[in-house]
Amino acid sequence: MYETNAPPGRVAADVPVDERFMTLALEHAVTGLGRTAPNPPVGCVIVQNHQQHGGEVVGRGFHPKAGGPHAEVFALREAGEQARGATAYVTLEPCSHHGRTPPCADTLIAAGIARVVVAALDPNPQVAGEGVQRLRDAGIVVEVGVLEAHAVRQQAGFRSVITRGRPWVVAKYAMTLDGKVAAVREGNGTVSGEVARERTMQWRNELDAIAVGSGTLSLDDPALTVRGVPGGRDPRPVVFDRRAASDPHARAWREGAVLVTAPEARADAHEAAGITVLRADTLPDALRGLGKLGLSSVLLEGGPTLLSAFFAQGLVDEVRVFLAPKLLGAGLSPLTGPTRSMHEAQTLRDVTVELLGPDMLVTGLLSDIPRL
Amino acid sequence: MYETNAPPGRVAADVPVDERFMTLALEHAVTGLGRTAPNPPVGCVIVQNHQQHGGEVVGRGFHPKAGGPHAEVFALREAGEQARGATAYVTLEPCSHHGRTPPCADTLIAAGIARVVVAALDPNPQVAGEGVQRLRDAGIVVEVGVLEAHAVRQQAGFRSVITRGRPWVVAKYAMTLDGKVAAVREGNGTVSGEVARERTMQWRNELDAIAVGSGTLSLDDPALTVRGVPGGRDPRPVVFDRRAASDPHARAWREGAVLVTAPEARADAHEAAGITVLRADTLPDALRGLGKLGLSSVLLEGGPTLLSAFFAQGLVDEVRVFLAPKLLGAGLSPLTGPTRSMHEAQTLRDVTVELLGPDMLVTGLLSDIPRL
Repeated sequence: MYETNAPPGRVAADVPVDERFMTLALEHAVTGLGRTAPNPPVGCVIVQNHQQHGGEVVGRGFHPKAGGPHAEVFALREAGEQARGATAYVTLEPCSHHGRTPPCADTLIAAGIARVVVAALDPNPQVAGEGVQRLRDAGIVVEVGVLEAHAVRQQAGFRSVITRGRPWVVAKYAMTLDGKVAAVREGNGTVSGEVARERTMQWRNELDAIAVGSGTLSLDDPALTVRGVPGGRDPRPVVFDRRAASDPHARAWREGAVLVTAPEARADAHEAAGITVLRADTLPDALRGLGKLGLSSVLLEGGPTLLSAFFAQGLVDEVRVFLAPKLLGAGLSPLTGPTRSMHEAQTLRDVTVELLGPDMLVTGLLSDIPRL
Repeated sequence: MYETNAPPGRVAADVPVDERFMTLALEHAVTGLGRTAPNPPVGCVIVQNHQQHGGEVVGRGFHPKAGGPHAEVFALREAGEQARGATAYVTLEPCSHHGRTPPCADTLIAAGIARVVVAALDPNPQVAGEGVQRLRDAGIVVEVGVLEAHAVRQQAGFRSVITRGRPWVVAKYAMTLDGKVAAVREGNGTVSGEVARERTMQWRNELDAIAVGSGTLSLDDPALTVRGVPGGRDPRPVVFDRRAASDPHARAWREGAVLVTAPEARADAHEAAGITVLRADTLPDALRGLGKLGLSSVLLEGGPTLLSAFFAQGLVDEVRVFLAPKLLGAGLSPLTGPTRSMHEAQTLRDVTVELLGPDMLVTGLLSDIPRL
């Protein structure tokens, strides 16, 4: 499973790779989620291998935002002279090209790193294995594929934009055990509990954009902000409103908000209010436009109409469903279309189940996350 | 939590109660599920307390069917002389009244049992604590409440009939992650997988009756039998068909089948086919009628119409939902009524979550199981 070029007598032959350090690097990368687009979230941990202690972390870093230093740079800065002969754990292949910063592969070589452990290769055609090759050419031991699945899932947005030209779309809804996301008669009651709400706020903090339809906007006037997350930042609101008929003074229209509307729609009032207007005839076009606006990931929090439209066209990449152990009766279903027979139902991959207070959280993928 | 009358120097003071023996007794009781109505399923294990080994099982038994010997009798028979001074673990309070068999309390006393550990008291007004009292009066140490919740759930059918005069109603359905139990266009595809199907067959084997509506009967012509369960027996089919319009030659009408229909419905063809006809104006009346027919528990496997009618009237006691990690689109919801606001949704109690192959199983109670 691991790809290695360990030469005899070098560090990799002596000290085994320890997945705990990659876990730590992945945890550091999380801090950058929602801030790095169009760059990926990346974490790096530098470990000096003391045989008797199993390794000591001497440097750590994460990529905070596009244009800022890469994770490796922060980690090497902290490690200083201790980087010499050490192992670097990086969640993504170090870059080999000059972007706004010099290539990280060169920086690692210059610092005297002896071994680099990489979770996943970079699908960016400007890197795509060249980072690893550059390190190996310099005599550095490189191992690839440690906790790869975890890393790839964390980088889904970046991978989607770089290979498909559109954001990774995550649909989220909360449903009763009889399959209802809302009552027919609107009440104040929410479907899921407090822990589920906190998790949703984490996701809003981690994804680039949050999308709703005009129906949800007019019905709920949602703020679409992050509450209760220390250091949290709000995602960019995206409102799908084909006729541009929504109230341009709704709460969602804060700075950075995007109106997605039809090419022929009159959106003068929205433009006058400073809202970014994205004109698209189809949902795939709209998603490509959002990708060009620098959005790598979208949390779809709309109602059944928007969700069904995305689902029917195969544009939902991942679902995250809160399941509340209660029965409602009549109510709204999360999906109202398309009409298919049961054996045409779409099966989720990489399913996870978690208990969240009284509720369950079920997640899974409908698309493969693009890899190299 | 435990109720005990342990006198100094007796067995109970020396050897602690061991829940593993009650677990074993509960496992023995399972064998009687679906066979004992109107009696409860009961298991019994007799343990000789060898201090150094933590106890040795010298007898075990379960109640196989109404009119047959009780669990204690089988266990005492196996134990023989080794019952003297031993501890009996019983899942239900031993009976104190003469029914078709002599009181088990007397039998335990006569066998020289030193201690009786009881999971749950018997709500039958003819017992209701008198069994325990009778044992204590004879100088036997009695402890009550060991794995009580497990035992009470296993005895739900018996407890329901004896205290409410109607069977325990368990609603079962399989739903996609977008809340659909069937496609709009009928296809051959099933919602959940093979492991879920096997579990359903176990339940059919363990519950007294299986109920569907006339819609399911005409749509699917289901056999409603138990397949693939060693030693399995078929539950009694119950068809809710207010107009008695269903085909009297459908597969469900095997021996023991019950047609539940309106008082004024013409059911001549069904009666001629040997089908038991139960006339009731309301669902509560129908359930009382089923209780009088000796049915303690009903597995509701009908479609949304039947399930919604039961649910709207508060007649569903327990739900068992298979959740398949897939999305369908348009489809049928398990519940179509009543119309309530979200904060009036009914919350399940004692929720369990289990992974069953690709699917999840979520169970919970809507009613409290009657206790003493």
